[in-house]
Formats: sequence, C-alpha cells, structure tokens
Amino acid sequence: MSGCLISLEGGEGAGKSSVLEAVEGWLRERGIEVERCREPGGTPVGERIRAILLDPDLGGMDAHTELLLMFASRAQLMRERVLPALAQGRWVLCDRFTDASFAYQGGGRGIDPARIAELERWVVGRRPDLTLLLDVPVELGLARARQREAQPDRIEGESAAFFERVRACYRRRAEAEPERFRLIDARAPLATVQAEARAALEDLWRRRR
Amino acid sequence: MSGCLISLEGGEGAGKSSVLEAVEGWLRERGIEVERCREPGGTPVGERIRAILLDPDLGGMDAHTELLLMFASRAQLMRERVLPALAQGRWVLCDRFTDASFAYQGGGRGIDPARIAELERWVVGRRPDLTLLLDVPVELGLARARQREAQPDRIEGESAAFFERVRACYRRRAEAEPERFRLIDARAPLATVQAEARAALEDLWRRRR
Repeated sequence: MSGCLISLEGGEGAGKSSVLEAVEGWLRERGIEVERCREPGGTPVGERIRAILLDPDLGGMDAHTELLLMFASRAQLMRERVLPALAQGRWVLCDRFTDASFAYQGGGRGIDPARIAELERWVVGRRPDLTLLLDVPVELGLARARQREAQPDRIEGESAAFFERVRACYRRRAEAEPERFRLIDARAPLATVQAEARAALEDLWRRRR
Repeated sequence: MSGCLISLEGGEGAGKSSVLEAVEGWLRERGIEVERCREPGGTPVGERIRAILLDPDLGGMDAHTELLLMFASRAQLMRERVLPALAQGRWVLCDRFTDASFAYQGGGRGIDPARIAELERWVVGRRPDLTLLLDVPVELGLARARQREAQPDRIEGESAAFFERVRACYRRRAEAEPERFRLIDARAPLATVQAEARAALEDLWRRRR
C-alpha cells in the first residue's frame, strides 16, 4: 500500500518543529517508516534554491521569481524523495508544502492563486492526505520567532501586515477543505498542540488500515 | 520612445559572443544606449540561479525544476533590467531569452510548450522585437564548443540527440515567426555572420526611426 503524505503548515513561530518531532515519534511507534522533508529544500538542488530564497541580502526579489523558485524546489523534492517514498509505502512528513505557496506568494505577495494552482497541477499533481495547520496570532508568532533567532531571514523580515495576509489565506484554505485540514490552535500549551496533532494522525491511520 | 528588445539565440558553439560584440558596436555607433544581458543570470538573484542550473555536479535535475529556475531568473531580469531599460529608451541585447526555454526545456526535455507559453505570459508578457538565430549543425557547434572549454557545464554535457531536438525547435520557431526571427547560417565565416546580424539590426533601426 502506498504511503500517506502529511504536511505541516503555519506562520512564523507556530511551533512546527516540535509538532513534527511528536508526529514522527507517534508514526515510528506504530512501525511506520517516515520520510521527513522540509520546504523549500530537502534535496541538493532544493537546498541551493532555499539559500537564495532566504538570503536577507537578496532584497527586491520579484514575486514571480520567489514563486517559481519555490516550485522549482518542490518539483525536485517530488521526484527525488516524495514520490519514491510514497511508492515504497513510507509516510512523508513535510515541513511546509504547496499550501505555503498559496499563503505566502498568493496571500502574502498577491499572486493570482489560479497561477499557483496551475503550477501545483504541473509539478505536484496531488494534495496531502492530511495537513496540520498550526494557527497562531501574528504578533504572538513573531514574538516567539524573534526569541528564537538573532537574524531574521529574507521572508521572516516581512511586515506584520504581510503575515496577517498569510494567516488569513491559510485559514481560508482550511475552511474550504475541512476533510483535509486539521486547524490547531497553537496558542495552547505545547503538550495540548502535540496531542491534537497525534489525534489527527490517529484518525488518518485508522482510516487507512 | 521606448527601446527595442533584441535576443540572440543559438545552440552550443554557434558564435553568439562575437555577434553580440558586433551588434553592440553597431548600435553604439548610432548613438543608441545598449543594455546587454545574459540568460540565465544578469541580476544578483539570476546569477545565483545560473550557478545552480549549470553546475555539472547537480545531475538528475527534474525538467520542471530546470524550466522554473529559468523563468525565475527571467522574471527578475525583466523587473530589474529589461523593463527599466526599455522604458528609458535603451535597447536591450539579450544573450538568450524565452525562445531558449522553448528550445531547451520544450524541444530538448519534452515539456509541453503550452506550459512554457503560460510562464512567458505571466513573467515576460512580450516577444523580442528581433531575434537573431545563429544556426549551426550540431556536430560542428559541439566541436567548436569543446575547443573553447575544458569542462562542459551541466547542459553542455547533454547528448547530440538532445541538441538536435533543440536545434529543430529553434528552426521551427523561426519558420513560424519570420517577421521576428532572422535565421543566420553560422557555418559562414565570422565576418559574414556579423554582417548579416548588422543588416538585420539596420532593418529594425530604419523601421523604428
């Protein structure tokens, strides 16, 4: 049986890393092999693209350049890691995926979502089986992110208004596809957030057995 | 009056560099300011993308990754250099442009040209005013290129069959748009090739006065 594709989405400081750890641990306990990836990046080509995307010295990047770099990295990730892993029955856990392009380059930068959907059709061709959306108010998320990192990357350095548009777009997508998304209130204590994520995984796992 | 956009296209070893020199000299003699660019590259972001595209150590690059990297670089070039130069009345001379994506990623890699045309519409929105296509048989071009360079880059390292498809696609495009293309037989002596290029420029220049 082919594996499941699970993406984890959320703005800055939503706590994705610790939820990824919890989810991966839960899957491994059940004997499921896990392929964990991050976006942009996750392949030698993709990590080179990531370095361009996040470089704070590359100001004035065109919005389409940003979008196309994201999908260039994603196309390579699909071919090199996601599709082979799914075909071999492993479950893929992806730290951000296509929804992030809709939220950041669509909602944040204002690119027509029809263009993003077209690129999704060309290079991804599918949606995740489950998307965990860690939702946190922008101010709280940015405060957490600042605490963690000394130097913001090119995208972290955007305005609060930008991140409000990103968050609103993520929430609209979750509302539009409730069967795929699990919206998790990431203001809650970490243990609660992790428990909600595990419960969503358990639902999917039971449906797939 | 806005400037003209002129692209120079051709396979490996077609002699683009020396023709660019001649064309730029001819324009400057007529008092025309010239913005000279190359693709992929031509901007700080674009040159970083170029380094990924040409790196011979990055084998197994997905065809869509290659296509999207090309257009990511092109979007930045349009915004940062081509559009401002044209708006200020300068003439833009570009060493490869969108036709190269149709020839290499479409003809060479087999990507549906409708996808390439869609990207062209999003990030370029126009065709060059004149495209000089330096046409040379593949074997001769590759022999010239090998003489020039010790180490082929990732794309120069492709098979002769790949370059035959690239050449056939370039020629089909020139046939389909005879008013834009000037197909130049690049087997001819350099002075003849340069004279043909200058004659094409002169035609365009007279029409624009």
